[in-house]
Amino acid sequence: MIRKFMEGVIDKFRKSESEVVNMQSDFDNQSSQNYKGRLFVVEGCDGSGKSTQLHLLRRYLEGKGYPVYFTTWNSSELVKNATKIAKKKNLLTPTTFCLIHASDFADRYEKQILPHLKAGYIVLADRYIYTAWARDAARGVEIDWVKNIYSFAIKPTAAFYFRAPLEISIDRILSGRPQLKFHEAGMDLKLSNNIEESFKIFQGLIKDQYDSMIENEGLIVIDATLKIEEQQRLFRKYIDEFLKDYTVPEYLSIIGKENTSQL
Amino acid sequence: MIRKFMEGVIDKFRKSESEVVNMQSDFDNQSSQNYKGRLFVVEGCDGSGKSTQLHLLRRYLEGKGYPVYFTTWNSSELVKNATKIAKKKNLLTPTTFCLIHASDFADRYEKQILPHLKAGYIVLADRYIYTAWARDAARGVEIDWVKNIYSFAIKPTAAFYFRAPLEISIDRILSGRPQLKFHEAGMDLKLSNNIEESFKIFQGLIKDQYDSMIENEGLIVIDATLKIEEQQRLFRKYIDEFLKDYTVPEYLSIIGKENTSQL
Repeated sequence: MIRKFMEGVIDKFRKSESEVVNMQSDFDNQSSQNYKGRLFVVEGCDGSGKSTQLHLLRRYLEGKGYPVYFTTWNSSELVKNATKIAKKKNLLTPTTFCLIHASDFADRYEKQILPHLKAGYIVLADRYIYTAWARDAARGVEIDWVKNIYSFAIKPTAAFYFRAPLEISIDRILSGRPQLKFHEAGMDLKLSNNIEESFKIFQGLIKDQYDSMIENEGLIVIDATLKIEEQQRLFRKYIDEFLKDYTVPEYLSIIGKENTSQL
Repeated sequence: MIRKFMEGVIDKFRKSESEVVNMQSDFDNQSSQNYKGRLFVVEGCDGSGKSTQLHLLRRYLEGKGYPVYFTTWNSSELVKNATKIAKKKNLLTPTTFCLIHASDFADRYEKQILPHLKAGYIVLADRYIYTAWARDAARGVEIDWVKNIYSFAIKPTAAFYFRAPLEISIDRILSGRPQLKFHEAGMDLKLSNNIEESFKIFQGLIKDQYDSMIENEGLIVIDATLKIEEQQRLFRKYIDEFLKDYTVPEYLSIIGKENTSQL
């Protein structure tokens, strides 16, 4: 019953959203502070351990009774199939590749992220627009063009960059998942005929992009070489600070209690 | 054998294209004049008769022995399925709708239009980026954002706007194809519960966009209420003028001769 009630609440925000015809907004002039909810995002190279950190943060926030909405990159059902087929075919130019991912993100943003933010949730995003910026720029697509495409998405409350030396994140990936995917390894860029070698070069290009965003976009750096517990302690400290002025909307407080009882 | 040879030529241009990593270009600073080929596009509301005019032009140019490449809006196989599924589900916001169409166009542009232009073909496009601009703007998407997305596509040699009073083009459509599609009629904008009424209002919004582009984008207007023969006569006069400095590349001249013999 609670679930049904909440679906109704979210649906209300979603509907009001779909009626807003002009969706574009100036990324720099708008932030999630304009909404009842908060948006925290984690970024970093594959193997940086950011997903683990976000998972632990989610547990922490739910334990505190907060209404949390969790979302990951490329989770939209709608365009997923197209991206998969396209990737398999290995036919896409960087421009098309960028636009397909942007379609996917726009769908997820306007149907999931934004309605939950408006409804007052704490939205946790495992990768956000910075992932697209970094990957597309690493593919040689003009960064200003990419940024403009994603300008419909608001600036998050805070974006955390889990930063590790390239060798460490690469080692973590290569030791755990030896079957690299074609585009994941940047093979479309013809950096190397060897997929592992290509992956290493491509991850380096992505890391360069992230590094340049620290200052330009105000990413908060967390040293991903620290112990998991230590990273989480730092992470929570930042989050607690950002949540100082956050209050759970009354109509959502029931969610928190429900979650707590499940822990 | 000739076909095989030509596929090799086009493939050569296509491959060199896929190796160009930075694809974006300033629309205003670049035009198809930079390539060996020429790009002519027709635009206008549904029912304006532009497709008939382009078909007749194609016959004319092929008859003259020119190598012609013909392309229509939304003909890319790659994203077609995604768009279809998405349209059926009627779940897309204008932003996502815009981005999916842009993906589709980017794929077609970089795999078909650009390689043929570089190879020296006369490319005839039944709808081009102006269609996207007009439709997306009619859906309330910010026009500058849309224009920037499509900035990777070059300005055509000439764009022709087949302009008819709204009642005429609407009558042509409604008398010929009474089964209007949901998005075609702009039903997603909730302009009216009646699909025909919605179609009429939506076409009016699109026409307003086209009208504003005449001056801003230098569209060449052809009066679509004239007799078919008269429109074609005017159309060809313009095209002949634009082709004055065009020469068929030697490696393509064989195509023209082949086409002529088929007429």
